[in-house]
Amino acid sequence: MRHPATLREDGTAIFRAALEAVDPAAAIRRHLKREGDRLRVGDRSYDLARLRRVLVVGAGKAGAPMAAAVEEVLGDRITTGVVAVKVGHGGPTRVVRVREAAHPVPDAAGLAAATEVLDLVRGATADDLVIALISGGGSALLPLPVPGITLEEKQQVTKQLLASGATIQEVNAVRKHISAVKGGQLARAAAPARVLTLVLSDIIGDPLDAIASGPTAPDRTTFSQALAILERYGIRESVPPAVRGYLEAGAAGRVPETPKPGEPLFGRVQHHIVANNSQALETAAAAATDRGYRTLILASGIHGEAREVAKVLAALLLEVRATGHPIEPPCCLVAGGETTVIVRGQGKGGRNQEMALAAALHLDGTEGVLFFSAGTDGTDGPTDAAGAFSDGQTVSRGRAVGLEAARHLAENDAYPFFRALSDLIVTGPTRTNVMDVHLLLAGPREPRPA
Amino acid sequence: MRHPATLREDGTAIFRAALEAVDPAAAIRRHLKREGDRLRVGDRSYDLARLRRVLVVGAGKAGAPMAAAVEEVLGDRITTGVVAVKVGHGGPTRVVRVREAAHPVPDAAGLAAATEVLDLVRGATADDLVIALISGGGSALLPLPVPGITLEEKQQVTKQLLASGATIQEVNAVRKHISAVKGGQLARAAAPARVLTLVLSDIIGDPLDAIASGPTAPDRTTFSQALAILERYGIRESVPPAVRGYLEAGAAGRVPETPKPGEPLFGRVQHHIVANNSQALETAAAAATDRGYRTLILASGIHGEAREVAKVLAALLLEVRATGHPIEPPCCLVAGGETTVIVRGQGKGGRNQEMALAAALHLDGTEGVLFFSAGTDGTDGPTDAAGAFSDGQTVSRGRAVGLEAARHLAENDAYPFFRALSDLIVTGPTRTNVMDVHLLLAGPREPRPA
Repeated sequence: MRHPATLREDGTAIFRAALEAVDPAAAIRRHLKREGDRLRVGDRSYDLARLRRVLVVGAGKAGAPMAAAVEEVLGDRITTGVVAVKVGHGGPTRVVRVREAAHPVPDAAGLAAATEVLDLVRGATADDLVIALISGGGSALLPLPVPGITLEEKQQVTKQLLASGATIQEVNAVRKHISAVKGGQLARAAAPARVLTLVLSDIIGDPLDAIASGPTAPDRTTFSQALAILERYGIRESVPPAVRGYLEAGAAGRVPETPKPGEPLFGRVQHHIVANNSQALETAAAAATDRGYRTLILASGIHGEAREVAKVLAALLLEVRATGHPIEPPCCLVAGGETTVIVRGQGKGGRNQEMALAAALHLDGTEGVLFFSAGTDGTDGPTDAAGAFSDGQTVSRGRAVGLEAARHLAENDAYPFFRALSDLIVTGPTRTNVMDVHLLLAGPREPRPA
Repeated sequence: MRHPATLREDGTAIFRAALEAVDPAAAIRRHLKREGDRLRVGDRSYDLARLRRVLVVGAGKAGAPMAAAVEEVLGDRITTGVVAVKVGHGGPTRVVRVREAAHPVPDAAGLAAATEVLDLVRGATADDLVIALISGGGSALLPLPVPGITLEEKQQVTKQLLASGATIQEVNAVRKHISAVKGGQLARAAAPARVLTLVLSDIIGDPLDAIASGPTAPDRTTFSQALAILERYGIRESVPPAVRGYLEAGAAGRVPETPKPGEPLFGRVQHHIVANNSQALETAAAAATDRGYRTLILASGIHGEAREVAKVLAALLLEVRATGHPIEPPCCLVAGGETTVIVRGQGKGGRNQEMALAAALHLDGTEGVLFFSAGTDGTDGPTDAAGAFSDGQTVSRGRAVGLEAARHLAENDAYPFFRALSDLIVTGPTRTNVMDVHLLLAGPREPRPA
C-alpha cells in the first residue's frame, strides 16, 4: 500500500487503470479462453473440433479491436467474418472484414455491411458457431429495414418519434419492428447455428435487448405496442405509409413477430458481457486501494442532469472531509454511468466537464479533495477532452485568470474554462465505451504541503 | 441485533428514532448539563454562583420547547427572557415569555418581540449570561430594521433583490446591514455579557452566520458589498431612499460595520449546535444497525433538484441490489439535507414526496427495496404529510388504481398519488427542523415472503 501522492496524479492513474480494464481487446482476451480444442466463455464451452465453421459478425465502435482480439484467441479457426464500425474506427484484422459506416446517422455503407452480415449468418448451419461482437453505436452501424421500407423511411419515423417526445425505449420498440436485424432477428437468421454474443456494454444496467438494439437478444415489445406508440404521439397517419403498413401487417399477424423471451432459438444463444461500467469501477477501486486509499464503489448507474448529479457527489466529498462518512479519508469514492446536459447556453463542453464545473462551485474553498469525471471513450461532448477535474481551488484559480465558474456553467461553457486552467482530462480516442467514470478523492486528514 | 421485519415498519421506526434525537427539548437536555453551580455546554462551563443574571432570548420555530427545556435545566436561575416563535408554535414556559409572530413574512408582533429582545440584552452587564436560542425561521421572526428604516422598506428591498435573481447569500448580506439584530448585532448589543447561543440548525453545513441570519455570529460581509449587490442587480437607485442612504452612510464609515470575525466581543460568545441533520442521520444509522441492517451514512448536505437527486439515490439502491455496493444488504443507506422542486405543474406535493415518486420510477420492478424520504419538521410542501415512501411496486400499485406515476411527477402532483396508495409519511408538526432525512433500505438477498 502506497501513501497517496498528489490527488491529481492518483486520479489520472486510477482512471488509466480503469480504461485498461475495459479496453475491448483486453476484455475479449480476458473472457475468451482457448484450451486446445475447447473455447471457454463464462460457464459455457465450445468444442472447436466439432464445429464446422466459426463466423464472426458484429457492429459497434469497438468492432475492430474486438475482432482482432477474437482472431488472436481463435487464430485460423475463424472461417470468415464481417463487422461494421464507425468511420475512422477501423483497425487491422486478419480474416474478419471491417466495414466503416456512418454514425450516428446511418448511411449506405452501413446498409451494405448489414446485408453482408445477414447474408453470412443466413448460411450458417447447426454445426457452425456465430460469434457476434456488439458494442455501443452498433444500432446505427447495422441498419437494415425490412424489405419494402427504405433507410430514409426508417429514419423519417425515428425523427418523427423523437420530435414528438417519445422515449428512447419507445423509439426502439418501433425500430425493432421494421428492422431485419434488431430485436433478436440476427439470432433468428443465424439459427440453427449456435450464437455467442460478446458485449461491450454502453448502457446502464447492461440491458441486452437495448445495447445495439439487441440483434441477438429476445425482444419483449410487439407490433401492437409499436402501433400504439405511433398512436400515442399522434403520428400514426403521418409516418411513411410503408412503415405504417408493415406495422399493421405485423399487428394483424401477417408478418412474424420479433423473437420473444423463452423461444427455443435462444437456447442456442449465449450472451457474455466482456466489459461494462461496473468492471471499470471495480478496477478503479482496486487501483485506488493500491495507491493507499480506502475505497467505496457507489453505483454504476448514475444518471440524471449533470449539474444536479454533481451536487450530490460533491455533498458526499464534503461529508468525507467533514465527518469521515461514508468512509474515512484518505479515500476514493467511485461511481459511473452517464449523465445528461440540458443545453441552456451557447458554450462548449460535455457532461463530464459540466459535472466537474458544477462540483467546483460546491467544493469551493475545501482543501484536500478532487472531483474527477471522464468518459471512457475519451470524448466528452463535442470536445477533444474526455472530461475534467476540479477541486476546492478551481473557482478561485478561474477567477485569477478572469473566468467566472458560475457564468461558464450557466453558459454550458466548461471546456474553455478548464482548458484555461489546464484541468482537462485528455486521453484521445480509446476505442472503448463503457460510459463515464467519476472519482471522488479525499487526501489524508492532515493535507501535506503541495 | 434483530432481523429486519418489513422494510416499511423499519423505515418508519428508524425515522422516528431520528426525530426523537433532534427534538428541541431533548437536544437541549442532552447538551446543557447542570452540575450544582456549574453549567456545562460542550467544552465550556459557566459558574452560576458568580453570575448575576441569566437572560434567555431567542427566535425560531423551535423557540418554545427550547426555552422550556432550558428552564428545566436552569430552574430558578433564569432571571427573565423572551423568545419569538411562529404563530401557533407557542408552548408552555415558566419564566421566559413566548411571543408569537408571523412567518415567513414578518409582522408588527415580530417587530415588537425583536425590540423586547434587544432591550433586554442591552441592559446586560459583564456579570450576566445571555442564553440565545436560535432555530429555523428566526430571521423572519426577529425583524428589526435600524432606526430610520421601516419594516415595509426592508421588505421592499428584499422583494426587489429576490425578483432580480440575487442569491440568498446576497439578500442576507444586504439585510444584515439594515438590521439592528442580524449579523452579530445581537451579540454586540449584549456585550459585555457572556453569550451562549444554542442552535438548532436547519441549513446545510450549519453556517452560524446564516442560521436565523446569525444574530450572535461574526459577519464577513460589508456595507460596501451590500451596495455592490444593489449595483449588480441594477436596483441601487430604485430601492427605498432610506435603505440606500443607510448603506451609503455605512460604506462611508459613518455607521458602524456589523461585527467581524476576530473582534474581541466574540471571545465572550459561545455557539453550540444542539441538533442538526448530522445528528438525525447518526441516530437513524444507529437505529438501523439495531434493527439488523448494515448502515452507511452518505451525506448530510444532499441538495439539488428533487427528482434528479432521487435518480442518484435510486441508482445507489439498485446497485446494492445488483452488486452489494456500496454495502451488502440487508442495509440502510442514510442521507439528509434539503432538495428543491422546480414547479412545472399544477399539482400538490412537497420535495420529499417528489423524490419518492421520482425514485419509484427508477426502482420499478425491483424487489426488496424501500425509498423513504421525509422532512423532520413533519411538513413537506403545502401538505399535511412529512414525506412518502416508495419501492419497486409503487408504479404498478398506482396503475392498479388508475394513477400514472410519471404523469403525477410531471405535474408535481405526488401527494394525491401517495395518498391513494396510503404511502404518505404523516407525523404531524414535530416542532423541530433539521431539514430532511432520506432512508434507502434493502432487505436480505433472499427476500422473505411478505
